[in-house]
Amino acid sequence: MTDVIIAGIGQTEVGEHWDIALRDLAYVAIKEAIADSGGLQPQALFVGNMLAPNLSNQAHLGVLLADHCGMRGIEAVTVEAAGASGGAALRQGYMAVKSGLVDVALVVGVEKFTDQVGAGVDTAVATTSDSDFEAVQGLTASGQAALLMRRYMHEYGVPSDGFAGFPLVAHANGAGNPCAMFRKAIKAEVYGKAEMVSDPINLFDVAPNADGAAAVILTRSDLLPKGYLHPLVKIAASAVSTDTLALHDRHDPLGFWAARESVDAARHKAGITLDQVDFFEYHDSYSIYAALSLEAAGFAPHGEGWKLAAQGAIALNGRIPCATLGGLKARGFAGGATGVYQAVEATIQLRGQAGPCQVENARFGLIQSLGGPASTAVTHILEKITL
Amino acid sequence: MTDVIIAGIGQTEVGEHWDIALRDLAYVAIKEAIADSGGLQPQALFVGNMLAPNLSNQAHLGVLLADHCGMRGIEAVTVEAAGASGGAALRQGYMAVKSGLVDVALVVGVEKFTDQVGAGVDTAVATTSDSDFEAVQGLTASGQAALLMRRYMHEYGVPSDGFAGFPLVAHANGAGNPCAMFRKAIKAEVYGKAEMVSDPINLFDVAPNADGAAAVILTRSDLLPKGYLHPLVKIAASAVSTDTLALHDRHDPLGFWAARESVDAARHKAGITLDQVDFFEYHDSYSIYAALSLEAAGFAPHGEGWKLAAQGAIALNGRIPCATLGGLKARGFAGGATGVYQAVEATIQLRGQAGPCQVENARFGLIQSLGGPASTAVTHILEKITL
Repeated sequence: MTDVIIAGIGQTEVGEHWDIALRDLAYVAIKEAIADSGGLQPQALFVGNMLAPNLSNQAHLGVLLADHCGMRGIEAVTVEAAGASGGAALRQGYMAVKSGLVDVALVVGVEKFTDQVGAGVDTAVATTSDSDFEAVQGLTASGQAALLMRRYMHEYGVPSDGFAGFPLVAHANGAGNPCAMFRKAIKAEVYGKAEMVSDPINLFDVAPNADGAAAVILTRSDLLPKGYLHPLVKIAASAVSTDTLALHDRHDPLGFWAARESVDAARHKAGITLDQVDFFEYHDSYSIYAALSLEAAGFAPHGEGWKLAAQGAIALNGRIPCATLGGLKARGFAGGATGVYQAVEATIQLRGQAGPCQVENARFGLIQSLGGPASTAVTHILEKITL
Repeated sequence: MTDVIIAGIGQTEVGEHWDIALRDLAYVAIKEAIADSGGLQPQALFVGNMLAPNLSNQAHLGVLLADHCGMRGIEAVTVEAAGASGGAALRQGYMAVKSGLVDVALVVGVEKFTDQVGAGVDTAVATTSDSDFEAVQGLTASGQAALLMRRYMHEYGVPSDGFAGFPLVAHANGAGNPCAMFRKAIKAEVYGKAEMVSDPINLFDVAPNADGAAAVILTRSDLLPKGYLHPLVKIAASAVSTDTLALHDRHDPLGFWAARESVDAARHKAGITLDQVDFFEYHDSYSIYAALSLEAAGFAPHGEGWKLAAQGAIALNGRIPCATLGGLKARGFAGGATGVYQAVEATIQLRGQAGPCQVENARFGLIQSLGGPASTAVTHILEKITL
């Protein structure tokens, strides 16, 4: 079996980059990833992007970025699966190297939200839901998440501050990540006083839309350059599952079925139990998504995912550390770049380079990128190996 | 080496399907492809689409179609490379099967132009060019092709009716294709009297934007169902190359460099010479693209591609039959579905099911899907084999 190695990583700070174009954001991450790999030259580029055709009036990002970033001529394509676009691009790059058709693949996730302001962003994001049956009725992503959170609180008797642990941990960890959008810990009182965005979702229950780019270089271990200095991180498993696109088509809206299926498939492929997972980079675009993702992965029974946050189990020294470098909440939600940010962050953890955010002796990292309310779920397991 | 087989094909008629939604167009093609394969059940879906986020306000097509077309739960993703999206999706499906990670892949190309009318379409198509440096200046796809055609006529002394052979052959062949948008041969006089669209491009030098969906099932030969009745068609080679996104960045705008590179790479992988190619499904969105594609592939020297059309060499009984079932010009240009239509049509040819359009004793078919003015070029070689 061919091992696919994450040989290089790069990322921009996540934030409001009003003065940097989408193509230049990508350039920064790509240049850093190639340098980090020891100078590997990509043969193929897989771009994860969610909304550029709408937000930036720019499709055809594959060739745009290959051209602009000094790789004119190479194979290039865009991969889209809403918020899971980055994870989906990572999987395409993985398959390309696994197939033997590509020796060195570059996966870049990029999103530029600040090319639009206000309602333009909501309208663009709504294209990722069921346009004919959800978006035209006025349902927004936050509105949908609010419905899920309200239902969850009702079903399981969760108090109004039951979700506070998610943003508290995310912000605490984000403080140690130089690329995070928010690098300041918050206090429980702040959560309790936060403004409502879409009741019961308050300002701290939703990750901020932001600009950013992240990149990874994938190759086979036998192709690593001489003098390659990093500890080796391989993709031990990759899996994608889907659910209904529209939330109203589900028997149990509170069960993130695709998230569960893809974690189970990935664990089976990697041959590991849940206990062997050292940290979990979940898709906490909303606090309720974090709770449901923990339950779907099997870390908590139905209705008890929120308790893991409330009881400190998701902290760096907890049973299952989550959002170890800030997650979507504190690193920022850079749309289709998210899945690649997760891969970069998990690699940093497995290399032991996470500084104050380091999970001790981490060997297996679970990362999961969601499109919509887990309509698409892309799960990867990364593993630190020695040859 | 694992042979990747095109085990099933399906397609809708191309045309103005005002009354059929994008998801239903895809359903028709997918259902037909699965039935044609003898009932293979796809594990993964790769959607080629160019403009749905703009034309139909619908992104996240992977899960939309998996859900709507009876495959809820399977891996699904959208692949975009402008007009080459269908070809790019075919390549992703090919890599998935080749990698051994997927046993049965479904590739569907779908586009629904009639969700918009008038300038909405031009604006959407312009997102596939360089938005910051081409589209905002007002350059449209047809305007760009007109500049190329005018330059070509000037450089090589081509008369105003020099390109007539391309649409004449396309329409003659389209008459024999029940899925073509235009099924009527045209006469040379009609071409001479046609209205200008963007001088010197007249109504017959440009393929019509149209709705349509096409699908193929890919698998390994050892997984074909018992009693599989079709002659076997395999993907002998797959290659993608890119060029500059913006036309003005090229040293020689009349050389379709990426088209040439990807044909050369594909021929090398398949181990065949140009003489062994039995037919060529080129990307004739404009007559000038057909001429430049013939030159890039090596069928004619620079400046002489148009002569192949003028001299009858691209006809069904000519030296290199092209657009054998109508091409983009007469079958219609269904955007990101195009590359999958080409795969379906080449399979029909290689199976010997093309009726009045049949190329005798065809063994190797070359198909090429372009994004922009060959900014992206995706080339596949299909081969009829016996086990």
